Amino acid sequence: MIQEIKGGICAVDGVKAFGIKEGKFGLAVITAKGNAAGVYTKNKVIAAPLIVTKENIEKNGGFLEAIIANSGNANAFTGEDGLKDANSMAEALAEKLGVDPEFIGIASTGVIGRKLHIEKIKEQICTVLPNLAATEKANDETMKAIMTTDLVPKGFAVEVKSADGNFRVGGIAKGSGMIEPNMGTMLAFVYTDADVRSEILHSSLKEAVRKTFNMIVVDGDTSTNDMCLLTATGKSGVAVHSFESACCEEFQTALETVLKELAKKIAKDGEGATKLIECTVTGAVSEEDAISASKAIVRSPLVKTAIFGNDPNWGRIVAAAGYSGADFDQTKITLEMSDGRGSVSLVSKGKITKNDEETLGQLKLIMSAEMIFIKMDLGTGGKETATAWGCDLTYDYVRINADYTT
Amino acid sequence: MIQEIKGGICAVDGVKAFGIKEGKFGLAVITAKGNAAGVYTKNKVIAAPLIVTKENIEKNGGFLEAIIANSGNANAFTGEDGLKDANSMAEALAEKLGVDPEFIGIASTGVIGRKLHIEKIKEQICTVLPNLAATEKANDETMKAIMTTDLVPKGFAVEVKSADGNFRVGGIAKGSGMIEPNMGTMLAFVYTDADVRSEILHSSLKEAVRKTFNMIVVDGDTSTNDMCLLTATGKSGVAVHSFESACCEEFQTALETVLKELAKKIAKDGEGATKLIECTVTGAVSEEDAISASKAIVRSPLVKTAIFGNDPNWGRIVAAAGYSGADFDQTKITLEMSDGRGSVSLVSKGKITKNDEETLGQLKLIMSAEMIFIKMDLGTGGKETATAWGCDLTYDYVRINADYTT
Repeated sequence: MIQEIKGGICAVDGVKAFGIKEGKFGLAVITAKGNAAGVYTKNKVIAAPLIVTKENIEKNGGFLEAIIANSGNANAFTGEDGLKDANSMAEALAEKLGVDPEFIGIASTGVIGRKLHIEKIKEQICTVLPNLAATEKANDETMKAIMTTDLVPKGFAVEVKSADGNFRVGGIAKGSGMIEPNMGTMLAFVYTDADVRSEILHSSLKEAVRKTFNMIVVDGDTSTNDMCLLTATGKSGVAVHSFESACCEEFQTALETVLKELAKKIAKDGEGATKLIECTVTGAVSEEDAISASKAIVRSPLVKTAIFGNDPNWGRIVAAAGYSGADFDQTKITLEMSDGRGSVSLVSKGKITKNDEETLGQLKLIMSAEMIFIKMDLGTGGKETATAWGCDLTYDYVRINADYTT
Repeated sequence: MIQEIKGGICAVDGVKAFGIKEGKFGLAVITAKGNAAGVYTKNKVIAAPLIVTKENIEKNGGFLEAIIANSGNANAFTGEDGLKDANSMAEALAEKLGVDPEFIGIASTGVIGRKLHIEKIKEQICTVLPNLAATEKANDETMKAIMTTDLVPKGFAVEVKSADGNFRVGGIAKGSGMIEPNMGTMLAFVYTDADVRSEILHSSLKEAVRKTFNMIVVDGDTSTNDMCLLTATGKSGVAVHSFESACCEEFQTALETVLKELAKKIAKDGEGATKLIECTVTGAVSEEDAISASKAIVRSPLVKTAIFGNDPNWGRIVAAAGYSGADFDQTKITLEMSDGRGSVSLVSKGKITKNDEETLGQLKLIMSAEMIFIKMDLGTGGKETATAWGCDLTYDYVRINADYTT
């Protein structure tokens, strides 16, 4: 049985955290000893902290003692200096904690192509460390410290009551702009007190990220700094040592639940967003096709602006599926939209259901909700499905990004 | 020698045209007898008029007598009725002209998923036909008739003085939103009075479209109705009958010149746009990589909003190239921006040139121009290049698309 609990990452046994934010510049530290796995951006311009963290985790066989994360400067496209600065962040924290720097995960988010103020970060470490705690408040401060243009802090945790005992999974994330993750998201730090074998940890994370963070789009820009780190403290005593065990399946479900909630929070808090869009595509020949079609729909600026303006211009949804690369025949698709309460059928097996004033009026009403569900069946006879999340495109997205650095 | 001339398509011998616009609903008719070639959207939801036109041109061996185009309704995703309506448009015009309906090209642009008002179109044919003319004014009315959210009519024509005699190439286009053409653009009708062999006509058009219309992005949405039709009237007497002839090369250059100017006009008049962006990528391993990188940069909402707001946040350009899929090493790229007069070096062989207030101030000034040039060298040792065009992303894009149909 899985159930939501409070406290975010600090609800997980073995995790302490804290963070501060000074103007645009925040710093968070999380300590938690255990097996660890990471997924990282596929952007060719991968940021320095990711290069260092990836190397460390690969070198040390998948183990972390702590994570340090700064906001306000992405330490991306900063060359040799950037790598030096990322290492300095790890070393400064490692020294204070009395651990090896290669057991520190490093993350950064903010402007690309600017040198890190490493002295500032060192000062912030000194402020943060004495406050490390396993409390809900400490979790809150940590979530806030990694925010950039995010409006709300993002965390989620669950407790699993399994036959092998109880364990927890909790995570925090930040998102907002430059969001179309490709193997990772802007920043997400996830913890479990289950005792998860390294190999399982890595494959579970990869699979969960594929279905959650990799299925959200704010603007279609894949960041240089996307990273999701997962650490298992083992403190609950629940052993996840075999892929075939029941608790491995329970762990996977719990992990996907946490990541999905964080992913939805990121999409909902996309820069300037007023609405969350969930698009489910069914009846596809391949899962890849279902993913392409659902992501094309939530990525389409025309769909996103129509949803912002409650414009019942559903033809744009069909057009987006059409250019997504997914295989289908326009005479066989079915389209429905809902707000979770009422729903309206727009296309049934290739035929427009009704395009009268009443139908379009109903659709306008549904589109005015805070959460909009788009359901499209490709009608290929295939059984594959995928769900993607996105947000509307608003004046505020333009405002925020027209003067981000200045 | 190629030189720009006035008159658009009506400058081409053998072409007569006229159009009217009544509220949102416009109709244009162009008569010109000759060999013809077309390229069409790759969107799976291909609109009815494109299906009919493509079939006609394939069936009749590449020949057109006239084109009929309506604006305000895309006749897309309209099923069997849509095909019937597209055929009715062709038949109605063919009857009046006394020609076979299969020699009529049909085009539509506007809202998707709405039944065409075929009676209205028949009435408009009767109004347009008596006014058909080969004048500059007739060309202007035709350009206006096919506009939707376009702010300016788009046409361009050139005259080529070749050793084999003089010939002309002229085209008109409409664009604005749902613009990331894939084998065609929203609507473009191009004419030449050279006598071009059918096979040459088709391959020339494909190649020219690949380098021009397929290199523009307004919002990354590929329309259901993209189409570019090229007709050669042969009236100049200049024979383009061999791929190896000098005049074939001259014809190709003239065609690319016209299509490039039309493509730039479409990008510049992108919905809500205030600026034209030209991005040239050099030093790529393959042309495909150069295309991916240059299009990713002009497609990036973050680059587009930064340019709208004169925000010197050039790191977003590097990030967009990074996720484009193009092969490169971030330590070897070079980036420069200019407004055609002054230019500023931002990155040289992987190193940030200068990030001081003066450089960023210079960059802000350059970004405030109406046309912005981005030059990126991928530094792979490869020699391939590509140029893409786009526009900025503004409040007005959101405004226009938040209530397009209502």
